[in-house]
Amino acid sequence: DVKKNVDESFIETFLAEVDTLQIQENLRELTKVPHMATTAGDEQTVQFMLKRWQDAESGLDQAWREEYMVYLSFPDPKNPNKVTVVSPTNTVLHTAREKEKNYTSDQNDPEVVQPYAAYSPAGHLKGKLVYANQGKPSDYQRLNQTMVLKGTIAITRYGGVGRAAKAINAAPYGVLGVLVYTDPLDINDGLMSDINETYPHSWYLPPSGVERGSFKSHFGDLLTPYLAAKGNQQLQWYIKFIIISPIGFEDAYILICALDGAAAPADWQGAFNCTYNFGGPGFKTTSAFNNGEVKLDIFNYEEVKSSANVMGVIRGSVEPDRYVLYGNHRDSWVHGAIDPSSGTSVMLELTRVLGKMVKQGKWRPRRSIIFGSWGAEEFGLIGSAEYTEQYLAKLSERAVAYINVDIAVFANATLRASGMPSLQNIIFKAAKQVSAPGVDSTSVYDNWIKYSNRTSPAHGVIPGMGYLTGAGSDYAAFVHYLGIASMDISYTYDKSKTNARIYPAYHTAYDTFDYCSKYIDPGFVSHQAIARTVGNVLIRLADSLLLPLNCSDYAESLEDYLNTAVTLYGNELGPKNISMEPLKRAVASFRKAATDLEQMILSSDLANETPLKVRMINDQLMLLDRAFLDPLAFPDKYAYRHVIWASSSAGKATFPGLADAYANAESSGQFSDWEDVHYHLSVLSQAIEGAASMLVDVI
Amino acid sequence: DVKKNVDESFIETFLAEVDTLQIQENLRELTKVPHMATTAGDEQTVQFMLKRWQDAESGLDQAWREEYMVYLSFPDPKNPNKVTVVSPTNTVLHTAREKEKNYTSDQNDPEVVQPYAAYSPAGHLKGKLVYANQGKPSDYQRLNQTMVLKGTIAITRYGGVGRAAKAINAAPYGVLGVLVYTDPLDINDGLMSDINETYPHSWYLPPSGVERGSFKSHFGDLLTPYLAAKGNQQLQWYIKFIIISPIGFEDAYILICALDGAAAPADWQGAFNCTYNFGGPGFKTTSAFNNGEVKLDIFNYEEVKSSANVMGVIRGSVEPDRYVLYGNHRDSWVHGAIDPSSGTSVMLELTRVLGKMVKQGKWRPRRSIIFGSWGAEEFGLIGSAEYTEQYLAKLSERAVAYINVDIAVFANATLRASGMPSLQNIIFKAAKQVSAPGVDSTSVYDNWIKYSNRTSPAHGVIPGMGYLTGAGSDYAAFVHYLGIASMDISYTYDKSKTNARIYPAYHTAYDTFDYCSKYIDPGFVSHQAIARTVGNVLIRLADSLLLPLNCSDYAESLEDYLNTAVTLYGNELGPKNISMEPLKRAVASFRKAATDLEQMILSSDLANETPLKVRMINDQLMLLDRAFLDPLAFPDKYAYRHVIWASSSAGKATFPGLADAYANAESSGQFSDWEDVHYHLSVLSQAIEGAASMLVDVI
Ligand SMILES: [Ca+2]
Ligand SMILES: [Ca+2]
Ligand SMILES: [Zn+2]
Ligand SMILES: [Zn+2]
Ligand SMILES: [Zn+2]
Ligand SMILES: [Zn+2]
Repeated sequence: DVKKNVDESFIETFLAEVDTLQIQENLRELTKVPHMATTAGDEQTVQFMLKRWQDAESGLDQAWREEYMVYLSFPDPKNPNKVTVVSPTNTVLHTAREKEKNYTSDQNDPEVVQPYAAYSPAGHLKGKLVYANQGKPSDYQRLNQTMVLKGTIAITRYGGVGRAAKAINAAPYGVLGVLVYTDPLDINDGLMSDINETYPHSWYLPPSGVERGSFKSHFGDLLTPYLAAKGNQQLQWYIKFIIISPIGFEDAYILICALDGAAAPADWQGAFNCTYNFGGPGFKTTSAFNNGEVKLDIFNYEEVKSSANVMGVIRGSVEPDRYVLYGNHRDSWVHGAIDPSSGTSVMLELTRVLGKMVKQGKWRPRRSIIFGSWGAEEFGLIGSAEYTEQYLAKLSERAVAYINVDIAVFANATLRASGMPSLQNIIFKAAKQVSAPGVDSTSVYDNWIKYSNRTSPAHGVIPGMGYLTGAGSDYAAFVHYLGIASMDISYTYDKSKTNARIYPAYHTAYDTFDYCSKYIDPGFVSHQAIARTVGNVLIRLADSLLLPLNCSDYAESLEDYLNTAVTLYGNELGPKNISMEPLKRAVASFRKAATDLEQMILSSDLANETPLKVRMINDQLMLLDRAFLDPLAFPDKYAYRHVIWASSSAGKATFPGLADAYANAESSGQFSDWEDVHYHLSVLSQAIEGAASMLVDVI
Repeated sequence: DVKKNVDESFIETFLAEVDTLQIQENLRELTKVPHMATTAGDEQTVQFMLKRWQDAESGLDQAWREEYMVYLSFPDPKNPNKVTVVSPTNTVLHTAREKEKNYTSDQNDPEVVQPYAAYSPAGHLKGKLVYANQGKPSDYQRLNQTMVLKGTIAITRYGGVGRAAKAINAAPYGVLGVLVYTDPLDINDGLMSDINETYPHSWYLPPSGVERGSFKSHFGDLLTPYLAAKGNQQLQWYIKFIIISPIGFEDAYILICALDGAAAPADWQGAFNCTYNFGGPGFKTTSAFNNGEVKLDIFNYEEVKSSANVMGVIRGSVEPDRYVLYGNHRDSWVHGAIDPSSGTSVMLELTRVLGKMVKQGKWRPRRSIIFGSWGAEEFGLIGSAEYTEQYLAKLSERAVAYINVDIAVFANATLRASGMPSLQNIIFKAAKQVSAPGVDSTSVYDNWIKYSNRTSPAHGVIPGMGYLTGAGSDYAAFVHYLGIASMDISYTYDKSKTNARIYPAYHTAYDTFDYCSKYIDPGFVSHQAIARTVGNVLIRLADSLLLPLNCSDYAESLEDYLNTAVTLYGNELGPKNISMEPLKRAVASFRKAATDLEQMILSSDLANETPLKVRMINDQLMLLDRAFLDPLAFPDKYAYRHVIWASSSAGKATFPGLADAYANAESSGQFSDWEDVHYHLSVLSQAIEGAASMLVDVI
């Protein structure tokens, strides 16, 4: 039926069907073996997804694998990477642990990959050690004031900036190589002992645990920018960074506490029971490493390998050419129970419940639903990025929204959601209909607002949602490259109870079924809450007659950004004859168009309008974000085209290109940099005016 | 009615209403005074368009002016540009005519602008004269073999390459300045005398006639690339060319016939009754100019001025958010009877007939129709380009097609049409329903096929349509920047009867009502035929239930390009390990998707399908061309994004980026240039695969 709206009783049925035991068994199956991208374990998960999605009783309409030939980086099992301290005569004084310590049979699996920095070049070098805090530009700058960095090895802790930045920022100073570790201060609330404090006694990271990761500067396959890596292409050149390797805090402790030189500033100090010094450079003469140097022997190699996305579709009944996309990556670094298999388990439970309804003929969504089980996310969001490159035009024209669930459950305290402001309302609506795990007769929404809230001019006190300004998971290409309304959702911590920057076993060999079921979500009730909440959102996006995308909430975010920009920059720009009026006018145009459109919707009886009138309104809402794309706005940022949500290094809660251009001009003082600020203001104003005009039917 | 199809009886009524006298009186009004962009005459035409489009009895639903602040270039009326020959002691030996000779009161109008090269920088210089044929790269190269070009002035004739190229190509050789003229061979079938041969005795160009023009390298406003020139922007820098000035053949004759040096090659010779020599450099010692130099005193100045588009809308009844766009530029160089007022007269007759129907409540199109009367086209398609920059996202999402009628009637022999192959079928259909002017009981179609035809694998012998690969008129931004199915249509010559490269009065002070009504289209019957044909196309695009865009005809063009590419490049690319298979597969995918879609359409009873099913098919057809856009495919070509129709310098009837990359690699032989060929093949294959997938509903 062309005019049918979402069926509330169907949503209730769906909510009732989502089952904790099913999710638990999904997770058990997915985490039997490590499933790093393109390994045999990965292929096992591909087969598992296909089996489930092609199941005659609870599968989807269609499911298939889509392969890409992508450039990956691995350590060499025959020549493990080594980090050692050597004396001037090359006597080995200390060797960092090559593999994480075994506590359960999981760590013992021969397929556990040695902790490494993917895309670090191979090489052999040594140098005096220095401590560079988080490897931020300001950290190296500070360190450079106290010593000559040329020829040194810098040890840094995770946090503050992205992984690759720790190496990129070091290069200008002539640093030879970089080590990175997780400080117990940042992950373990200071705890360090595996006798009784860390896993398997708690969720905290054991001393030998090492966060693996991808150390490259942009998302997607490195060798095929803007082209889907389907093989047979001219591969593109890229610039390699300096050598980098991760180590556990067990080894970092030994290295850092032996460092010579002046004491580092207070905010550089971590949880080790010693003073973190800058380094002489090098070690104290009183230490066992006196005159020793740190030596890195990295045998990483790169290889173009075939990586699979698994795709599945439920075909829409009324508007098959409108897609609600839902994605989760499938590949992990090791067993990946939390990252990503918590999300995969949730996705499989969603498709089981919905697929069963479809197979039984009880339900078929109005719009098509496309599920993506992305490959090679851990190497830099590769599967999802290649997918968007391959289907750029089609997805741009037809995608209603993208829902990303990577890690479904970081912890079991509260919902966390980020996304385009237009999706806020539907997320709230769904969250109100799901009961919070572990809290009696409270909804996920009411529980959420206790942990995170803000005051909205339009809605009063509401939960605080985040924006998707970075490239932290597979939403990146959908937000930044395609301009599709996107959201990322999970259950997470009570931040008043821990300072951990992420769950402690993240990207280590301890991220296992045992860890998840004991410490992250016993009983899988938070998994269930996420499945219910996100499934509710998914069904509403797919079935609502009027798309539940709210343009007034978008206007509120733009006004908030505008106010911040005027406050931060207005006084300085006026005297330079750089007017903020066009930007103010554009935001006002957007607000007016949003108000008019909502007024029109409210005054219409959509169920009795022609289907084409409803489609017209839906297209205005669906395509709104496309108007914010400008492929020329950020020439130095790969695939970043969305002028509102692009990443920014300025750290201001306002328009990213403006904030970065302003910061740059302010620091250089050059006339041409102020011209760039002016130019970016024009780019931004035109995009917002364009988005406003997308909300108007004819002229 | 949501399911109503185009009404054939309405088309018949429309055809009957189109009136030659109305067109004639439109033209008379429009050409009363010169109406160069932003002059008082231009403002008069703005007022005239607004009056007509806002008329209560025959106007449109809405009409308004849209202003842009654009960068224009003018000669200084107080310091006219001068081209002279001077002796070594600076005695003036010859002065080129500053204004065209008066034959009618039209040329006498004080608002006739001095012939000049817009965007030539101002400056004063002199040098020995050389003859450089058409100013192609090969022409300067040839000339450079016989002499040192540094410090010379080159005289070139129109044709062969674009205007600006004649200056750009000269610069590397150190040429100081360039003259350009129209050789009687290229425009007058050799005739030169105004006693009895040229206008006012015929349509041929008088000796003093000078083609004005814009000498810049890309379309749109120079100072606001990719941003609508709405004022208050950071203006962008641009690179100035060397000085250039046009002169009449009256003066060119005197200069060229006095040139010293060896005789130029046979294909450099024009219609003058002397041998065209290369130049000594400079003149023959036996000539009156012995030792003389050519001196250019150019006083052009640039100014940012407000230029208006006049916009008009008929709002669609069923799908107001689908736009059929129709445009014509309004500005001329002088009176512009043919260019562009023949087209403006036709547009006004269309809007009169359709507007009357709308005002009387007898008709309202299914889709919205947007009319654009573009400003400042002569300066480089500025009004239309700024419009597309301003409404990029909205037009991308909603425009069904763009119809361009610039010069409606070049001559009265036959129809000429260029455009996306998907529009071929509807143009044929319309042309079959209109009778050819001056030919008894023959349709425009049957007359056309006699002048230009080709054999199509699918349709047999049909009229030959062109492609819109360049930027010759306002379709450029719609085709290349937005990827909207576009067409350009006119009545034109019998090429067996004249070798004129364009109608002889083009861009001169002789392009007047008198000229048009006497020599181009007496009785305005060809104007009527164009109005009928293009109006028929317009109504079908606006009213058809199923959009009349044919994807199989697109497939035929792609196959044709592919076959040419394989023939030209296949043998060379194979041994270099650059496979054409992905391109072949992509074209085959496109053909299959087109066939499947048409099969589905044929087997459907669209009038009894849901309106959303019809809309889905229409969206697939409408958005097909968007998939061919790649903003990164041609980084050096401003606003060229369409990988099938972009301009190309290789001169091969195949994919432009591939042809240019191949020509470049073949000439340099460098490995990296062959890599570029490979890369462009990937870009092209992905775009065609993307377009194929746009023709498929879900996956
Ligand atoms: Ca790629
Ligand atoms: Ca512009
Ligand atoms: Zn993840
Ligand atoms: Zn991860
Ligand atoms: Zn024109
Ligand atoms: Zn013109």
